[in-house]
Amino acid sequence: MAAHWAVIRNNAGCLNMFEIFAIQTETEWLHDITATIQETVRKSGVTDGICLVFCPHTTAGITINENADPDVVRDLLLGLDRAFPDRPEFRHMEGNSAAHLKASAIGSSVTLIIKGGAPLLGTWQGVYFCEFDGPRRRQYYVKVTEG
Amino acid sequence: MAAHWAVIRNNAGCLNMFEIFAIQTETEWLHDITATIQETVRKSGVTDGICLVFCPHTTAGITINENADPDVVRDLLLGLDRAFPDRPEFRHMEGNSAAHLKASAIGSSVTLIIKGGAPLLGTWQGVYFCEFDGPRRRQYYVKVTEG
Amino acid sequence: MAAHWAVIRNNAGCLNMFEIFAIQTETEWLHDITATIQETVRKSGVTDGICLVFCPHTTAGITINENADPDVVRDLLLGLDRAFPDRPEFRHMEGNSAAHLKASAIGSSVTLIIKGGAPLLGTWQGVYFCEFDGPRRRQYYVKVTEG
Repeated sequence: MAAHWAVIRNNAGCLNMFEIFAIQTETEWLHDITATIQETVRKSGVTDGICLVFCPHTTAGITINENADPDVVRDLLLGLDRAFPDRPEFRHMEGNSAAHLKASAIGSSVTLIIKGGAPLLGTWQGVYFCEFDGPRRRQYYVKVTEG
Repeated sequence: MAAHWAVIRNNAGCLNMFEIFAIQTETEWLHDITATIQETVRKSGVTDGICLVFCPHTTAGITINENADPDVVRDLLLGLDRAFPDRPEFRHMEGNSAAHLKASAIGSSVTLIIKGGAPLLGTWQGVYFCEFDGPRRRQYYVKVTEG
Repeated sequence: MAAHWAVIRNNAGCLNMFEIFAIQTETEWLHDITATIQETVRKSGVTDGICLVFCPHTTAGITINENADPDVVRDLLLGLDRAFPDRPEFRHMEGNSAAHLKASAIGSSVTLIIKGGAPLLGTWQGVYFCEFDGPRRRQYYVKVTEG
């Protein structure tokens, strides 16, 4: 769901766009948000440029991975859990340090190339909002810049 | 400490700015550099655009994570140490292969959206220079582009 | 090998460039692609701007790490294998879930600052195409934007 969006032109007449999306997540899951990004780029009217997808939370992130077999998402979460398990030595009171670790390992944004009016993704690539500490009400931002 | 900075306009009249910061690090620590980035964006005069924070070292990185409880930083370093420990099989003569691993897992840059003249960060998000092999004299670069 | 490239100017007269590279990979290796990126930036004629290097595959990625001692690359692959090993619980039929995990941990792109007509890299930094599931015929994209 898009909470807000606007297309503007900068001083030089180049298009850019910023959109905020709201998302209700499940407990630890990767949500495919590719279609919303493609639609933002389409609405912007930008044919060549850059698209930045940004997560404003510290126990969630954005990644690109396979969009075909749902078992990939399941295996990704399992593998991250094993690499970054909850540990008795952790001191953060909220008890979600493992989610903070996964967020920094995965990263808080992805940057895409826009070509021919669409984000350039490989055949099997989808963009995922990664929830490591849900269920929660979350947001992500999409910024499109001509150039 | 800013070692160098300059605001320029490109051919089309759009603002952009580049700044180099120097930082003296401690042994394995995450240094909150958010305020310096906010100040660079303010100085640039850019209201809408992109801000890239880049680390030119291979045993350090840049990440976004929680800015409230200092135990999160402590737990992040502990969790990274466990996921990427020093190993007897490592051959790199300098003996800091674990630091190289953490640098690639965390990443060498973060990209931020600029909106209303400031980098758009979530309530609990801070930008951190991650030292995995200090103490050292380090640098990081901040690039601001209108668009 | 460059499969395709083009330099264009946007509405405002700013230069930008897009290039597709093809690469034949070995089984799990990091390929140094720094020289091709430097050459793309040179061809673009952009003196100040941003360069995005993007991998359109889900079992490969792009990272920045040391370009001097080849043992660093070897140790990186070993350390990633230990952090993200193949696991009997994985369900993805292709059997390469560990490669998908490494791809998301490393990331699918790096963003560089262009200054003085060249990408700004630290003394010991090289840009690597990371193959986690080869040998394969792969591609990577380089996008240069003035600003």
